[in-house]
Amino acid sequence: MRLVACIEYDGSDFFGWQRNQAIRTVQLATEEALSLVASHKIETIAAGRTDTKVHASAQVIHFDTVSKRDERSWVLGANTNLPPDISVLWVKNVSEDFHSRYSAISRSYRYIILNTQPSRPAILRDKVMWEKKPLDVSTMQTACSFFLGEHDFTSFRSSSCGAENPVRNVTEITVSQVNNFIFVDITANAFLHHMVRNIVGTLLSIGQGEQTSDWVSDLLTTCDRREAGITAPPDGLYLTNVSYEEHFALPSSPSAPVYW
Amino acid sequence: MRLVACIEYDGSDFFGWQRNQAIRTVQLATEEALSLVASHKIETIAAGRTDTKVHASAQVIHFDTVSKRDERSWVLGANTNLPPDISVLWVKNVSEDFHSRYSAISRSYRYIILNTQPSRPAILRDKVMWEKKPLDVSTMQTACSFFLGEHDFTSFRSSSCGAENPVRNVTEITVSQVNNFIFVDITANAFLHHMVRNIVGTLLSIGQGEQTSDWVSDLLTTCDRREAGITAPPDGLYLTNVSYEEHFALPSSPSAPVYW
Repeated sequence: MRLVACIEYDGSDFFGWQRNQAIRTVQLATEEALSLVASHKIETIAAGRTDTKVHASAQVIHFDTVSKRDERSWVLGANTNLPPDISVLWVKNVSEDFHSRYSAISRSYRYIILNTQPSRPAILRDKVMWEKKPLDVSTMQTACSFFLGEHDFTSFRSSSCGAENPVRNVTEITVSQVNNFIFVDITANAFLHHMVRNIVGTLLSIGQGEQTSDWVSDLLTTCDRREAGITAPPDGLYLTNVSYEEHFALPSSPSAPVYW
Repeated sequence: MRLVACIEYDGSDFFGWQRNQAIRTVQLATEEALSLVASHKIETIAAGRTDTKVHASAQVIHFDTVSKRDERSWVLGANTNLPPDISVLWVKNVSEDFHSRYSAISRSYRYIILNTQPSRPAILRDKVMWEKKPLDVSTMQTACSFFLGEHDFTSFRSSSCGAENPVRNVTEITVSQVNNFIFVDITANAFLHHMVRNIVGTLLSIGQGEQTSDWVSDLLTTCDRREAGITAPPDGLYLTNVSYEEHFALPSSPSAPVYW
């Protein structure tokens, strides 16, 4: 039978999601814990393969098992066996046609910037990006609107991105601020490799006044990664939601993390 | 000359503030960094000696030095030499009659409880207390009012507390909630050992309906530690502010940390 699970993790000490025997990955740690609960080897597939140091407040994974356990036992059993930086939020039985990656309608990410604080953060180190120079949030908001809709995001994907088609549909992108913290929230049908971090890097240039907001429009036309902003560091990035069709009746995800 | 500094630290991996050569403490790490900047041995005194795993978003310390550096050089130099879980927020020259502990008029602490989330937190592990059972915030708020004012806090201090006088003056205590997070904020002229954690432990019993809010009134009269609630774990506790007389003209502290 097939099960779907929502997991939260602090990516700081992981080399990303993707299993790779020699290094500490979220996938390997999660599969080891679930295998102990199942009493047989479990392989998982995630909605989004987060990179080294990237966090998830709500990653969605699925796996197949022959073991009969109720949903609560999966959650409790997994959390007993998982390291403290991963937690299973819920587990649910799902039909065999569900696939965490291919059934996903959209993914949402939040990027958190600690702005203007003169000293580096200690409590939230690895949890936010620290940018001393003041950012103009209103100009960043204006720039966001250019990303909305279906575009070729070649200028915003890493050179190692393996996707055949660089077109993605951004359905929501907002910039908001509370105290010293700036939140960039973005939802798209899917993302290219480093797409959120490259978008944030571009918004940083605009927020610092190095570029005007309509630079985004040029970059979307140019289709040249070298023209766009830096790749923002992974520390501030959180996978916050994955949406599926209603008929799968999945529990809702927790709200995206907020700090200040 | 005398300098005053405000420091932030993540207490998770420290055995508290107080220097003790064999173990990792905030005081030792801070003195090592400041000594490198000063080029001579620095000894520090803190406004409040936080316990193992307790955090500070704004601890205030002072130290004496013969080295002439501008305030900005102290901050930058210290942060270069400090481990990532401590950060100096500001440094200021101050008159010799200033003492971080004895000149302090009041201290403020925030305690953060992650409530009702069915699974343990991964991203905020060590940063909040996790309490699965739902807490009645309104009853906890009612209970708070009994703590206000000058009382003998014997029922709320640890058996190892060395203070001669158990009377303290609580000038503010509030309980608030945002999403799954409950914040207990408390300000007093000074605190006894474990006083905030024992107050929070007592509020937890009341919030869970094991005791009524006027239990606090009984406990303040009883003066018996064994009668009050548990000592809440250190993970959720933050020293958030220390107040001094205005003539010292210290920079303001950052706002207390908020998560959800």
